[in-house]
Amino acid sequence: MEHWQGHRRLTRRVIEAFPEDQLFSFTVGSMRPFGVMALEMFNMAVPTLKGVITEEWETSDNRGALPKEELLQRWDESTEEINTLWPQIPAERFQETMTAFGQWTMPVYDLFFYLIDNEIHHRGQGYVYLRALEIEPPFFPDRS
Amino acid sequence: MEHWQGHRRLTRRVIEAFPEDQLFSFTVGSMRPFGVMALEMFNMAVPTLKGVITEEWETSDNRGALPKEELLQRWDESTEEINTLWPQIPAERFQETMTAFGQWTMPVYDLFFYLIDNEIHHRGQGYVYLRALEIEPPFFPDRS
Repeated sequence: MEHWQGHRRLTRRVIEAFPEDQLFSFTVGSMRPFGVMALEMFNMAVPTLKGVITEEWETSDNRGALPKEELLQRWDESTEEINTLWPQIPAERFQETMTAFGQWTMPVYDLFFYLIDNEIHHRGQGYVYLRALEIEPPFFPDRS
Repeated sequence: MEHWQGHRRLTRRVIEAFPEDQLFSFTVGSMRPFGVMALEMFNMAVPTLKGVITEEWETSDNRGALPKEELLQRWDESTEEINTLWPQIPAERFQETMTAFGQWTMPVYDLFFYLIDNEIHHRGQGYVYLRALEIEPPFFPDRS
């Protein structure tokens, strides 16, 4: 959880670094804007955690553009939910194989690595967008 | 190791996807070309692993452009070295705190996460470069 939350703190700073008018519009090479990628991370995080705990997989589907402040507020709500939910995962569950959202079958530890890796992958893309916008991105090794 | 090697197999496909003449030249937003990022990953991988095992930190510093085939060959040599070296890490070492290359102090498990995370981060940037070049990048979830 600490590893994940450290990455989520860095991703939050990347969201913050985007100018309001570019967050849901700026793209390179016909890719999705960074705000849409951040919503994907948001949509995956708490629903996956709830699924691992309850074995019920309820999708969250927020895809529309929203003001940066509102996105950051939802991000912070997720942070609190993760802090509350994570300790509820039974220790042995991490080694079990589950099928998330009816389609992703893997050990639970791999499911969480997938969430983290997907976030790093898209956040790295956000770094390119920021550089293309001539904005200095946050320092990558800083997870504080 | 399997998690890391899975990511390295995907990164290898990203290197392969670049046209020879763009690997060490194409950039977005004044960032480094993807070939230089791939060399950074190469320079970090085996030297970190050797440092964790021997406690001697010898840097590897390959930065010049080289033909794609040669980069892929070095990548494959690293793959074999990782397969050979990884099982030599004493199990208790993962929980120890070490200072890598005289400057990165953290538990050994975090040191390896840093290598993997750095690779995912820059590979995600390579995906943007490929899209900007109108080349379809490899499928992200495939680690085979």
